[in-house]
Amino acid sequence: MEDKETKNTGASIIRSLMKTKNISMKQLADELGYKSAQVLANKLYRDTLSLNEYVRIANVLNCDVKTIAKDGSIEILNQYKENK
Amino acid sequence: MEDKETKNTGASIIRSLMKTKNISMKQLADELGYKSAQVLANKLYRDTLSLNEYVRIANVLNCDVKTIAKDGSIEILNQYKENK
Repeated sequence: MEDKETKNTGASIIRSLMKTKNISMKQLADELGYKSAQVLANKLYRDTLSLNEYVRIANVLNCDVKTIAKDGSIEILNQYKENK
Repeated sequence: MEDKETKNTGASIIRSLMKTKNISMKQLADELGYKSAQVLANKLYRDTLSLNEYVRIANVLNCDVKTIAKDGSIEILNQYKENK
């Protein structure tokens, strides 16, 4: 019964970043090397991105993904790994 | 030809956090509601966690996952969404 729009899921964050940076689905798909904008649109619609793929897309959008302890004691950069 | 151990992938970060926080596979698996420590061990071995699952595990380990613009202009908290 959860509102689908209330959580910052991977797809909603990517959509938000695309909007802020004024990047189209086609542009981002091209940068990622996807065959078409539709491939990206489908991934965002399903919203089941792997962590690795999410990090890659965030990086292309000039963002880092970080895992940070709530007490600030640890900060780790999540890295994209090719061929996974 | 990439060294498998050089990247901060999801599994390597979780293993590192477990070590730092001195949490066993069994303890973490219990907190996540997995049937056994083996279920968690297998997920970490495959290292193909979904973003959503990764966020959940990081949260249980008292960490936030954030997407942060490299220029610092944007900081978004990645949230876990149930039932995905």
